Amino acid sequence: MEISIISIGNEVLKGHTSNSNYTFIARQSTLMGNHVRRGYTVSDDPAEISWALGDALSHSDLIITTGGLGPTYDDMTLESIAGALNLSLENNSDAMEMLRKRMLPRNIPLTQERMKMAVLPKGSEPVFNPVGSAPGVLITHNGRQILCLPGVPQEMEAIFNSIRERFQNSDLHYYEESLEFPGIMEGEMAPLIKEEMKKLGDRLYIKSHPLSGSGSGYSVMLEISSYNEDYSEARKLVKEELELFRKTFGKKDQ
Amino acid sequence: MEISIISIGNEVLKGHTSNSNYTFIARQSTLMGNHVRRGYTVSDDPAEISWALGDALSHSDLIITTGGLGPTYDDMTLESIAGALNLSLENNSDAMEMLRKRMLPRNIPLTQERMKMAVLPKGSEPVFNPVGSAPGVLITHNGRQILCLPGVPQEMEAIFNSIRERFQNSDLHYYEESLEFPGIMEGEMAPLIKEEMKKLGDRLYIKSHPLSGSGSGYSVMLEISSYNEDYSEARKLVKEELELFRKTFGKKDQ
Repeated sequence: MEISIISIGNEVLKGHTSNSNYTFIARQSTLMGNHVRRGYTVSDDPAEISWALGDALSHSDLIITTGGLGPTYDDMTLESIAGALNLSLENNSDAMEMLRKRMLPRNIPLTQERMKMAVLPKGSEPVFNPVGSAPGVLITHNGRQILCLPGVPQEMEAIFNSIRERFQNSDLHYYEESLEFPGIMEGEMAPLIKEEMKKLGDRLYIKSHPLSGSGSGYSVMLEISSYNEDYSEARKLVKEELELFRKTFGKKDQ
Repeated sequence: MEISIISIGNEVLKGHTSNSNYTFIARQSTLMGNHVRRGYTVSDDPAEISWALGDALSHSDLIITTGGLGPTYDDMTLESIAGALNLSLENNSDAMEMLRKRMLPRNIPLTQERMKMAVLPKGSEPVFNPVGSAPGVLITHNGRQILCLPGVPQEMEAIFNSIRERFQNSDLHYYEESLEFPGIMEGEMAPLIKEEMKKLGDRLYIKSHPLSGSGSGYSVMLEISSYNEDYSEARKLVKEELELFRKTFGKKDQ
């Protein structure tokens, strides 16, 4: 499954808040055997949200958005998506029930602003938010899926985890290992990585990351990963390849 | 100045590495009076890099990229940008001098892979990297600027900081304050925020962030910011507005 991630919100766009939501979603999506295709960070502006959604729909099976589901004037995600997909917005009785279930026991009045969180694009499936108010929203449109999650990290993770099985890739498995090579510079590894990628690039992915550029303290983190129909095959390929690098660049204590 | 940020690299795209570079660049750009317009996260693939660059050039004065400047086979940023802008790649003698300055005192041989870091799009200005090898690269093209920074955070920050004065907005200043309101829910503040934004939205920006959705421990972080030609005017507007919210929603101890 090809996945794109749209991060919505001025606080993330301006760098006031770090985008840990992106990292979580991208990492979990990858570990479930999917390919993350593109990430977008946009403001709370319907034109910007529509632009990102339109681009993502042109190449991805699943688009996951974070942010913009709350009760304030600039929570525009659902309105923008409805507009972009030409869907009407309507009161969703399941979403309203979820809001009641969260708010009534806490004596929180269901004001007009809060009821907005139950106004969803027609045909949406609300997903219960066990740690906050705004439900997640799953929209199926022309064979693609759009999952809208809140921007508060704990809420986003709880909703994602509650339906993650649906996004497990049943055809492909992902395996990855990383190993640090102290005292090695990226440039030393470059020729072998290039050679191996030429030979095995359709089955393996090898990436080096310099960990520090300062003087003699340099070090390379090598990451080797594989997508394969067979999990043990992916694991075997990665381990064999890592062994080659360990033999070539590893210190005795590794 | 309108700024877009392109984060290049499979490790960031897949969520293996958190995108702290984005947060740093977006935050610093904002504090210097600029508007961050869009963020893109793409793989180490020339077609993907070109797509993001093409889109960013259609609306931004400065495009800042991170990642893909190193010596390995998948460091494709400069090649991709040269291709997208129809510029030739050539050995840049200033960049080569920078590489020598970093490498020779450390007895690091200037291999073919490493010399690749001095092959820049024609007309580029290399920017010395004080903590690593790959120089930053500044390209001016049809009145727009493209600043390419390495992906290693310490190197990215050092290069950015060495030329940050050039990206200071001389016409606009930014001022921002945040205040936490414990025991307040976002929905309670929504009507006043909406009303105030209607009245002052052209001079101020007010944003609420729920800090926790769990039971009685909820809390709202309110952020008020302003761009203004006059720094003291921006500061005054923000402080007056914050005072209104403090009076309305603040506890006695605030």
